[in-house]
Amino acid sequence: MSSIEKLVESFRQFPGIGPRQARRFVYFLLTRNSHFLDELSSNLKELRNEVSLCNKCFRFFETHSENEKLCAICNNQNRNLSEIMIVEKDVDLENIERSSAYKGYYFVIGGTVPILEKEPERYIRSKELLSRIEKECKNKRCEEVIFALSNNPDGDNTANFLNELLAPLREKYGFKISTLGRGLSTGTELEYSDTETIKNALQNRN
Amino acid sequence: MSSIEKLVESFRQFPGIGPRQARRFVYFLLTRNSHFLDELSSNLKELRNEVSLCNKCFRFFETHSENEKLCAICNNQNRNLSEIMIVEKDVDLENIERSSAYKGYYFVIGGTVPILEKEPERYIRSKELLSRIEKECKNKRCEEVIFALSNNPDGDNTANFLNELLAPLREKYGFKISTLGRGLSTGTELEYSDTETIKNALQNRN
Amino acid sequence: MSSIEKLVESFRQFPGIGPRQARRFVYFLLTRNSHFLDELSSNLKELRNEVSLCNKCFRFFETHSENEKLCAICNNQNRNLSEIMIVEKDVDLENIERSSAYKGYYFVIGGTVPILEKEPERYIRSKELLSRIEKECKNKRCEEVIFALSNNPDGDNTANFLNELLAPLREKYGFKISTLGRGLSTGTELEYSDTETIKNALQNRN
Amino acid sequence: MSSIEKLVESFRQFPGIGPRQARRFVYFLLTRNSHFLDELSSNLKELRNEVSLCNKCFRFFETHSENEKLCAICNNQNRNLSEIMIVEKDVDLENIERSSAYKGYYFVIGGTVPILEKEPERYIRSKELLSRIEKECKNKRCEEVIFALSNNPDGDNTANFLNELLAPLREKYGFKISTLGRGLSTGTELEYSDTETIKNALQNRN
Repeated sequence: MSSIEKLVESFRQFPGIGPRQARRFVYFLLTRNSHFLDELSSNLKELRNEVSLCNKCFRFFETHSENEKLCAICNNQNRNLSEIMIVEKDVDLENIERSSAYKGYYFVIGGTVPILEKEPERYIRSKELLSRIEKECKNKRCEEVIFALSNNPDGDNTANFLNELLAPLREKYGFKISTLGRGLSTGTELEYSDTETIKNALQNRN
Repeated sequence: MSSIEKLVESFRQFPGIGPRQARRFVYFLLTRNSHFLDELSSNLKELRNEVSLCNKCFRFFETHSENEKLCAICNNQNRNLSEIMIVEKDVDLENIERSSAYKGYYFVIGGTVPILEKEPERYIRSKELLSRIEKECKNKRCEEVIFALSNNPDGDNTANFLNELLAPLREKYGFKISTLGRGLSTGTELEYSDTETIKNALQNRN
Repeated sequence: MSSIEKLVESFRQFPGIGPRQARRFVYFLLTRNSHFLDELSSNLKELRNEVSLCNKCFRFFETHSENEKLCAICNNQNRNLSEIMIVEKDVDLENIERSSAYKGYYFVIGGTVPILEKEPERYIRSKELLSRIEKECKNKRCEEVIFALSNNPDGDNTANFLNELLAPLREKYGFKISTLGRGLSTGTELEYSDTETIKNALQNRN
Repeated sequence: MSSIEKLVESFRQFPGIGPRQARRFVYFLLTRNSHFLDELSSNLKELRNEVSLCNKCFRFFETHSENEKLCAICNNQNRNLSEIMIVEKDVDLENIERSSAYKGYYFVIGGTVPILEKEPERYIRSKELLSRIEKECKNKRCEEVIFALSNNPDGDNTANFLNELLAPLREKYGFKISTLGRGLSTGTELEYSDTETIKNALQNRN
């Protein structure tokens, strides 16, 4: 297969990219100067070396030296030690950081558990989560674990799985498990909101 | 102006209808048999006679006799007397009823208060609301007034206005004022939710 | 059924209107003053009386006296007598008039013939078309019949049916049958145009 | 700047990609195995070496040896020598080839001329086009030059510019210049087509 076709194939695997746009990407690249291509190529090569997975929250972060193990957030001592927020993926974490509404620590489980899935562990970092929480608890730090998952079937199914997964630890160490509040999100109009949202909004009224 | 053009003009005023669709409506009507047109015409004529405004919650309801003054909800003694929910318009009320999540009574204010509006009373039923609430309080019934307004600037501005409007009565009778909970609505993904929604979801976590 | 529900039912039959918007229409009407409703109601009642079908081209037109039989276009002697354009429905005719690109006469067949339809005559004014064309031919007027049908399967199927339908008359009187040109429509980009359009555009290049 | 941010910056320049999707691309890449990244990286590096510009039609094509100068189409002796089609960019050419409606040769001008542009030559391959056409004419081959440009203002403006550009050659060698036919494209309905399209469709009826 030619390098054009190979690139089209690669770009097709990018999130939200179809065959037509993949091809447009390649033609776009052909019109760039070789400097652009070389830099893009080397940045891709570097990506894996310059980026590693945080040993504590499992988000990706840029490493500036060999022996870095923790990301900036996990390294930051001024955040709230008593809270651990569980998110699905890095972009969720970044979006929450952007809101600067949360000052605790995170754990990226790396996915969601599909409904009726036999082996949920294949989809998320179960073991790593358990050891992380246990560690925090032993250090008498973890008071609350916050589930920050999307409000959709897979998100709910994941929350249920995590609830059972963490039940023994909660029994033992007695931390609180909470989920993000549900109700009217910005822009929601009563006329068009679904039954679930209305129920939640009414229940969580304040 | 011809009756075709007159009808196009009328249909153009319908919510969400442009000139082109208005015209298609007329041509659609021309292809219906005269029975359809006569019935539509008489139903429109009847509308005002068969429908009146509830004296208590100010929603529209069908009257079956001359002296009906209250809608089915206000007539229903089995609902929760201690709660009054304030909604903008009839369709909001109907949507909330559809969710069957609420069992109290309603009050339709009939609109929202635009930001920086000098005379808010022109947009909503202020006087009627005050007398309704006062009446309920005097009967020792009203314990909570729920603001069920859309989560947008006009909705917030209306809530602020109502807060001030009801402040004296609340002082006097000590009922609670609450607003629908805010957070993740059905389908919301963390990756795409705005700062406000994340803040609310975090604050209202449970 | 209440007049509200009856109206919702009627509006649901309007082209492109779902149950929710139908209901919004009714509430919109409830907020209009009775004058608006009465006028709408009487205009609907009048529609059938003030509008009739042109005996010649079968489009709807406003009648100002009892004995009017022809629409303004068919009454206009200054148009091109040698051309008859066949259109599906009134709005198509109006849109073509708006372009003021055509100066001949029209015939509205009133629909399209679905593919594999056994009785095409049920869908369009076959008999009326035949007699109209024959009449024009006898008067030595009809030189060209233009099919102005949508560029989609039903439109093509209708064109094929009309071709066979008119074949005998064409044999006898020798008029020309033409169809609207096909190719790039306004805004079409080569990158995204389909095979058919490219083929037509290339064939009809000039 | 970190390699993540550098990659986000690069992806943002891709056609139709905003900052958010650019970031999602990077995170997507981080979850791929290093094999995927290495291959993508090397394919990008290879692109320029394996692909070159055809000396005759100026489209991109894969080279398998050093001394290849012409693409497969220009090398194909069985195509129609008398026709040269002028297209804006490679994807247009590919789309036309996909339709297999055209059997002549091509010339990619590489862009369009914006309206009121002072130096059109900066946008398209004017010189190369002139020498290509002249060469073909001298070889007594070029009988028709087909403008296959998008049906929009820039496309029309480009056609006008090319017309003037090629005028002297046409005088001298007397070839024909044609543009793709305009009219109803696939799916166009009469009810919604614009005035221009109706005019063209009527003019080009057949």
